[in-house]
Formats: sequence, C-alpha cells, structure tokens
Amino acid sequence: MTSLPGNERSEMTAEILDGQALAKTMRKEIDAEIAAFKERYKVTPTIAVVRAGEDPASVSYAGAIRRTFEQRQLGFGMYALPANVSEADLVAQIISLNNNPNVHGIMIQEPLPKGIRTEVITDALSPVKDIDGVHPANAGRLAQAAPVGRPPEVSDFFVPATPAGGMEILKRYNISLSGKHAVVVGRSRIVGKPMAFLLLRENATVTVCHSRTQDLGAICRQGDILCAAVGQAKLITASMVKPGAVVIDFGVNFVGDKMVGDVDFESVKEVASMITPVPGGTGPMTNIMLLRNVLEAVRRQLG
Amino acid sequence: MTSLPGNERSEMTAEILDGQALAKTMRKEIDAEIAAFKERYKVTPTIAVVRAGEDPASVSYAGAIRRTFEQRQLGFGMYALPANVSEADLVAQIISLNNNPNVHGIMIQEPLPKGIRTEVITDALSPVKDIDGVHPANAGRLAQAAPVGRPPEVSDFFVPATPAGGMEILKRYNISLSGKHAVVVGRSRIVGKPMAFLLLRENATVTVCHSRTQDLGAICRQGDILCAAVGQAKLITASMVKPGAVVIDFGVNFVGDKMVGDVDFESVKEVASMITPVPGGTGPMTNIMLLRNVLEAVRRQLG
Repeated sequence: MTSLPGNERSEMTAEILDGQALAKTMRKEIDAEIAAFKERYKVTPTIAVVRAGEDPASVSYAGAIRRTFEQRQLGFGMYALPANVSEADLVAQIISLNNNPNVHGIMIQEPLPKGIRTEVITDALSPVKDIDGVHPANAGRLAQAAPVGRPPEVSDFFVPATPAGGMEILKRYNISLSGKHAVVVGRSRIVGKPMAFLLLRENATVTVCHSRTQDLGAICRQGDILCAAVGQAKLITASMVKPGAVVIDFGVNFVGDKMVGDVDFESVKEVASMITPVPGGTGPMTNIMLLRNVLEAVRRQLG
Repeated sequence: MTSLPGNERSEMTAEILDGQALAKTMRKEIDAEIAAFKERYKVTPTIAVVRAGEDPASVSYAGAIRRTFEQRQLGFGMYALPANVSEADLVAQIISLNNNPNVHGIMIQEPLPKGIRTEVITDALSPVKDIDGVHPANAGRLAQAAPVGRPPEVSDFFVPATPAGGMEILKRYNISLSGKHAVVVGRSRIVGKPMAFLLLRENATVTVCHSRTQDLGAICRQGDILCAAVGQAKLITASMVKPGAVVIDFGVNFVGDKMVGDVDFESVKEVASMITPVPGGTGPMTNIMLLRNVLEAVRRQLG
C-alpha cells in the first residue's frame, strides 16, 4: 500500500475490498473444517441466539444467521423472548443455555428492551460460549493482549464478529498494518473499541475519534487505514480521506430503502486505494466470523 | 488551556503539575475518610502485597506502600515468596487471600519470575479485591465503559493505580479533556492502554503510539495532552511537544543514580503549558490511588 500523489490518484478508482467474494471463499474453507469437526467431535456445532422483543434489524440478522447455520446442517436455536421479559428471566434463559452441553455458542441480540441492563446480561454469559466477545472477561483479554506474537501470551478469547471480520478483510488483502496510522471513527463497545485494539495488536498507531472530536476531517485525513463505525450515513466524504488510504466501512444505514455505509462510497472511491462497499463489504464477513467462533467454541469446550 | 504561539511560549516556563503537593492534600482527605470508615465498618482496611522474588524496584515500591498504610494504622501484609515459587503455589497464596475476610485488597507485584504466567496469576485474583485493576473482568469493564455519565452504566470496576493517578492530576488541575486530542506514548497493560481508555471516557480524541510508530514526533506534536509511559529516559524532547500542551510523564528511569522520566523535563518545560516532574509528579499519586482503591474495596465487600 503506497500513498500516491493526489493527481495520480485522481485518475484511478479504488480497488473494491469484496467482502461478499471473500465470505464465499471462507465459507468453503469452513465447510471443509465443519466436515472434519463432525468427524472428530461427533457433535453438531450449535448456536443459540437470544433476543428480547422484535427489533426488525435483529429479526433480519437472526434470519441470516439461521440460514448460514442451517445450510451447513449446523444447530441453530432461536430464543425470542417477549419485549417485556424480566431481567431475571432473561438471565435464567442464558444460564440454562450455559448449562446445556448441546449449545456451544450463545449470541445475545441488541438492542435489549429498556429496563434490562446490558451488563447484567453479558455478565451472565459463560465466557467460553460468548462467541460475540461481549463478556467483560473476553473484552478484558483483548484489551490486555500484547501485540500479536509477543509475550505475555494470553489464552484464547472471543472477539466481536464485526471488527473480527474487518480485520480478516485487511489480512486477506495483505494490507500491512505495522507502523501504519489507523484512524477509527466510532467508539462503540462492539465495533469501534475492539477494532482499535485489534489494530493496535498488529502494531498500527491508532487514533479513536467520536462525536466530540474536533476537526474530524483533519484527523481522518491522517489515516493510512480509515475505519468508520458510527452509524451515520455517508459521514465520511472524499475530503476527509487521505489519498491512497484503505477504507473499511462498518456502517449499516438506510436512506429510504437503500442500505448505505458511514462512508460516501461514490466520492471516497476516487481518493482511497482500497475500499469496502456497503452492502457487500464488512457485512457478509460478520456471519462468517460468528460461524468460525462457534467452531472455536466447540474446540474449547470439547478439545 | 490554550495553545500560545511558539514565540510567546518561549518566554514562559510550564506550570508544574505538583503530584507531591496533590498527594499531600489527598492524604488529608483520605485520612478523614479512613476515620469515618473505621467508625462505620468496624474494620481495619487491609492490603496484601504479593511478590515472587526480590526485584529491587518491587521491594522499594512495597516499602513505600507499607509506610503509607502503617502511618494510617491500616493493615499491610507482605507475602514475599521465593523467586522459584511454583505457579500453583502462587495461585494457592492468592486464593487464600481471596478467602481471607480480613484482607480487602490484593496487589501482585510485577515482574513475575520467568515460567509464571501473568494471566494465570491475575485470573486467580478475586475481581472485588483486585485493587490494581489487573483482572481481565476489571480491564474489560474499563474497555467497555461508555463515556462518563452516559448509558449504559457499568458497575464499579478497579482501574490500575498509575493511570488513575494521572487522571486525578488532570482533574484536580481542571484540565479540560472533552474534544481535546490526547496522545499516549506506550501501550502497556497497566499504564498506556488503561490511560487511553480513561481519556476516551472523558471524550478526548485519543491516539496510542508505541515502538513501531512512524514519525513519533509528528504524532506527539498533535497532543493537547501528551502522556508518556514507555520507560525510556528522556525520549520525549521539546521538538516533539505542541506549544502549550499538558505533559504527563509516567516514566521512572534511572540515569546513574538520578531518577528521570520519559520526558526531557528541562527542554519540554519551555514548550509545554503544564508538566509533571519526575520525581514528584505521577509517582506520588500512585500510592494514593491504591489507598483509595482499598477503601473502595472495603465498601464493596462490606457496604
């Protein structure tokens, strides 16, 4: 990855980081792994998805996970509780799944209804079944982990699927990170902050921006790698992007019926060297990472 | 805090952020709190310090903690195990302290001898007695915590004493952080990374630099707040500091017999608006934060 002068860049358009195609490749790899798995462990790797209420995006996401799992003859259980479920009942459901040896991974869908404390729910999860990396012990291990390959090693931990998918794209496209300046826009618990940590572990210099950041454009323009995870349609425009930057867009926003990212794709693709589209970029990777985490969970529980 | 043009700044010298004086003030506040505490809980707040081997810096630090605690008629227990102690025996010692109701806070001194895995030792700690915030559940809560005052709230957690002391200096000197660019040099588990999180929670834009950072000077010069925690004597020189910046030096290095920080104090004080000296800056705050965390631990265990 090299930064070319602006006038050269303006003659080219960014390479598309094709999450859809990459997910397809990875599905094949994982299908081979699943076959070996069933042979070795004599179990059906199984996920339980827990939801309270019927948030449409959650319902749609759960459907996508169901298809991914059922197409591979993997186990999928949907625990859709009513929106007025009590915190205690939700915790009881999670504990029951923790104790169920036929369930290897548990995913809690957000948003949770008002009155239910996220922390109480994530704390209830068994860390070894926490395939979306939301239990504090998993978040803490990621926060504490030394750079990749350097001591002290920490034991395996689960990383939230969305940033894990973004990292996988960077890895599969051989984008070097060490010493590069990575700018992450957004500081959510499940995307921005874990992404910052993952980039730091790969020896990037990392800046985290957010709603209070002054002169966001100036900061973003420093990013050799620019990651957007704020949930604001087309917030990142061409003038905020360093010529030649690699742009990873985690945004999922709807403008009318159209899904768009946090990045103004049409203008930014004329400045960046590589960019993920929305849809078809980081999104398709999320399911794959979740699938991979479920296999990893089986390995830890039975291995 | 305002950035003045270089030629104005050169006529002035930075204000000293006097950790020694601040620690003295805080000791008085805490002494009043301790008196109220003994009255209320009828217990002697007690710390246990655990060490394996006789690393001179650890021995010296333990001595300073002992003085701080004994001067206030607080409990202090030193568990100095031999350098060749087994991991299992060290874990057994920690579990025994976890189960001892007369011990409220446990601090494990590093470095641990080779062959002992840091993670196994910190995992063994009870999170409610982990007054130096090294258990992954405490690190995870800090990593997951929303900005101060914003939901979702997470329950109380312990923050490592050194960065907590740095934040306390910023707070007591009324240094505004929201929207400011904070640059943290160093990404250690117990100083750099937690400091980055604490600054992010206060709505600073945060950049984390380290040994692989390219053009460290250029990145550092962006910092309205510049924190150094790398353990390299006088790494940060005047040319790397933004005129008017607030400089927090966590470094403890020895050049011959002289203790110096990571910041070249003599030159940087001519550029910065405020700066912590070494010694007498962040160092004296560390003990105080540990003391405060032990009181907090009593509150959680008995409150």
